[in-house]
Amino acid sequence: MEVINNHVSIRSFKNKPIEQNLLRNILYSGTRASTTGNMQLYSVIVSEKQEMKEKLVPLHFNQKVAQAAPVLLTFVADFNRFSKWCKWSFAKPGYSNFLSFITASIDALLVAQNVCVAAENNDLGICYLGTTTYNAKEIIEVLELPKLTFPVTTVAIGYPDERPDLTDRIPLDGVIHNEKYSDYTKDRLNELYSFKENLESSKQFVKENEKETLAQVFTDVRYKEKDNEFFSLKMLETLRGQGFLK
Amino acid sequence: MEVINNHVSIRSFKNKPIEQNLLRNILYSGTRASTTGNMQLYSVIVSEKQEMKEKLVPLHFNQKVAQAAPVLLTFVADFNRFSKWCKWSFAKPGYSNFLSFITASIDALLVAQNVCVAAENNDLGICYLGTTTYNAKEIIEVLELPKLTFPVTTVAIGYPDERPDLTDRIPLDGVIHNEKYSDYTKDRLNELYSFKENLESSKQFVKENEKETLAQVFTDVRYKEKDNEFFSLKMLETLRGQGFLK
Repeated sequence: MEVINNHVSIRSFKNKPIEQNLLRNILYSGTRASTTGNMQLYSVIVSEKQEMKEKLVPLHFNQKVAQAAPVLLTFVADFNRFSKWCKWSFAKPGYSNFLSFITASIDALLVAQNVCVAAENNDLGICYLGTTTYNAKEIIEVLELPKLTFPVTTVAIGYPDERPDLTDRIPLDGVIHNEKYSDYTKDRLNELYSFKENLESSKQFVKENEKETLAQVFTDVRYKEKDNEFFSLKMLETLRGQGFLK
Repeated sequence: MEVINNHVSIRSFKNKPIEQNLLRNILYSGTRASTTGNMQLYSVIVSEKQEMKEKLVPLHFNQKVAQAAPVLLTFVADFNRFSKWCKWSFAKPGYSNFLSFITASIDALLVAQNVCVAAENNDLGICYLGTTTYNAKEIIEVLELPKLTFPVTTVAIGYPDERPDLTDRIPLDGVIHNEKYSDYTKDRLNELYSFKENLESSKQFVKENEKETLAQVFTDVRYKEKDNEFFSLKMLETLRGQGFLK
């Protein structure tokens, strides 16, 4: 509980490799996660060699955290292994469809979070790279991912060289709904987001980006409609190419 | 680590409610998970009332575990709250697209796994209900989920009334790839799956279902192509209805 409750993303790492045994142990903890029908519909690609990291880092928009991490773990939704096993077991696999992509993605993400908790429990630090789905197409090429696989997230991992404060969250009641979804009024949202909006760091963020509100930093700078639509089409095309969409 | 490494899905629960404080604590641990840009793109619907559980259980194909659990937690990818906050902050949200659905789903799933680990750390047992994506359409109606939200998984939770053995996994090296994806040969798959295939429970499973191989139980009985294709179309339509697909 303490490990989970004290989680902060780490973006600066010591120049110290992760021992192979430790890495195996935390990956093993990943594999103890529940998966759909115990089919284990995931693979993890471990990137440690400089040569491979240099190919991946630009695909993660050259984020410093990706450059600094001794290890990048790419979590892959994988129906390839299971389907091949079916074929060689006189069974006809039927996983070339959208639902199967979602099913395998869920498997891969639960494994990823287990790996992160296990890593932090061993004094390692982690940071998720959301850029994985943006550039899945190119990551597939670099990692030579076959049909019926898709990279869903990447975790940068290493020994922390910083100790950031816990990041803010909206109040717990703002994300819990009893029995039915209780939609948000303007007043309720003001209540939930005022702490975040009034943080010094948020105000600084608004000022630096020459915006009027914190929300505008998200919509106009960080997560723009135009980019989201571009990457949506790209992702759907890539899913089609990987055999998950007809 | 021990909590994670000893995880087993629990399908039989004691007739004992979960204290509200404990439930809040494990949900709080959920919210400590990383989310994209700290946008917290998720909601959790807590179902405790008999009336609501009776509506949800059939949508989870009347699985006994759903019936037996004192609490069902539905984890929802939620871009509604964030988008409304944007609108009321003079910002134009651009999250009515497929990428944003995936982004919010990732957030929701990392939270779900944190909640499960925290629950097990407090002597509770959990079981994921993969049926959530199959019947998302009907779950949306029951839980009154607005546009730009989508239920991605459900966790049945309660005090365990059984202590099952750890379930089998394929060898760790079967899911890890160094630097690049190493595709599977027939021999390699035989190596990886022979332990699973030779379990007494697997043999029993094959016999009961009158099949020749374990894989056929998956392809012909449990996760059939026809069903997967049906639920794929249904899910895509539901995503469109929720505003995540044009």
